[in-house]
Amino acid sequence: MTPFEPRQITSLSNPTVKSARALHLRKAREETGQFLAEGLKIAIDAVELGFAPRVLMFGPDARDHEVLRRIAAATTEAGGEVLEVTRDILEKVSRRDNPQTVIAIFDQIFADLDRLDPEGATCWVALQAVRDPGNLGTIVRTADAAGCGGVILVGECCDPFSVEAVRATMGSIFAVPIYRASVEGFIALRGRWPGSVIGTLLSATTDFRKAPYRKPNLILMGNEQQGLPPDLAAVCDVNVKIPMRGRADSLNLAIATGVMIYAAT
Amino acid sequence: MTPFEPRQITSLSNPTVKSARALHLRKAREETGQFLAEGLKIAIDAVELGFAPRVLMFGPDARDHEVLRRIAAATTEAGGEVLEVTRDILEKVSRRDNPQTVIAIFDQIFADLDRLDPEGATCWVALQAVRDPGNLGTIVRTADAAGCGGVILVGECCDPFSVEAVRATMGSIFAVPIYRASVEGFIALRGRWPGSVIGTLLSATTDFRKAPYRKPNLILMGNEQQGLPPDLAAVCDVNVKIPMRGRADSLNLAIATGVMIYAAT
Repeated sequence: MTPFEPRQITSLSNPTVKSARALHLRKAREETGQFLAEGLKIAIDAVELGFAPRVLMFGPDARDHEVLRRIAAATTEAGGEVLEVTRDILEKVSRRDNPQTVIAIFDQIFADLDRLDPEGATCWVALQAVRDPGNLGTIVRTADAAGCGGVILVGECCDPFSVEAVRATMGSIFAVPIYRASVEGFIALRGRWPGSVIGTLLSATTDFRKAPYRKPNLILMGNEQQGLPPDLAAVCDVNVKIPMRGRADSLNLAIATGVMIYAAT
Repeated sequence: MTPFEPRQITSLSNPTVKSARALHLRKAREETGQFLAEGLKIAIDAVELGFAPRVLMFGPDARDHEVLRRIAAATTEAGGEVLEVTRDILEKVSRRDNPQTVIAIFDQIFADLDRLDPEGATCWVALQAVRDPGNLGTIVRTADAAGCGGVILVGECCDPFSVEAVRATMGSIFAVPIYRASVEGFIALRGRWPGSVIGTLLSATTDFRKAPYRKPNLILMGNEQQGLPPDLAAVCDVNVKIPMRGRADSLNLAIATGVMIYAAT
């Protein structure tokens, strides 16, 4: 094995450690364009997809792991920093009592809406003003599992690169293109969409299983509190509902999106 | 309006407040058979379904709310305690900076597995060793929305009456019967099941949309880490998979369960 002599950091006042901790704040993520991803599996998934960490931090337990060495090599090759840190630093950076042994900093990647090719997949997901990062992350994971082309964030959404959202994606944040669109941008996209644009609305009368799905399907979900606003519902080919048969008056947004995605694929 | 003069509590050392705070611990929930539910909406939903709080705590903001008065009346009538508390107490009991204005203590209710009537609904959900309370709560909410007969917890599961699980149910904890079964108990139930018993397995070859759904359907989901163990998969009529088309190797358990429930109903 080649010698592996990463820098060792034990101080919480190390500038890289301080920057890493700051990435829990949206402001710091926006200023740096970076985000935190935790765990050996997510980091190697990222590397295999061509994304090298800007900073790789790992604890004593991970040092001799062969996969860690591969991630470290990719990091160094891309000009990034590899740091062996203490468990205390991992706890503070992750804000967890039981931190993962690897935490990495990556550049955020948003895909370019103008270059979105609808024919690139049979199903796409758009989320209007999604608020809960756990929901957003889970939806990205579901979109990945179902082979969707990407997730389009319409209007003011929560941050897909927040620590909580990234955790919920279980690594799919690197596999699913994330797009951002204003309401007008979404309407323009809709204008050039060759397949069905399906809105989901509690007040709709069409059962989601009877919608005219025509590939590529674009599924548009409203937010957790208000659902889809009228101006967006109006531009869909059809609005559908998932029937509520019990006492609950709605589904969790990530569940509703999952049900819709699998209906459309 | 009739006079409304509940006891006012300002001290964290009040015994009822201390008991309420202890209900974050599974041990305290098991010893008392009680649980915490937060929010005016959940409390009134419970009352309307016939479940009165053992203890109703509310903050200054809720005092004059007509719905609060109805919950208070139902609590008193059932011999429970009504307490006006400070915002500080609400924060401490809920462990939240932004607590709901109403927190109530209810008796846990588990339904009797021996009296489960499969014909009472077209779909039922069984969860083997589910670990994440957020997943469990979200599944209870989905089961409610889809009109399932109940949720059966097989083997060692997380607690459906934990604060986190109850939050995720959004009130459906009062609408959906929760059953507990050992693995042997589940196999006995399966023996008398008149419809299809469908297991979900990543290694299955049958697409979930092609399973022979015959009502009443009983959907059995394995846990977040290992999926369904062989002894339980073996007793199902069929095991199905939800196809994975992307890089993600699995769906979140609550999403997979939601997709299965809507496929079977």
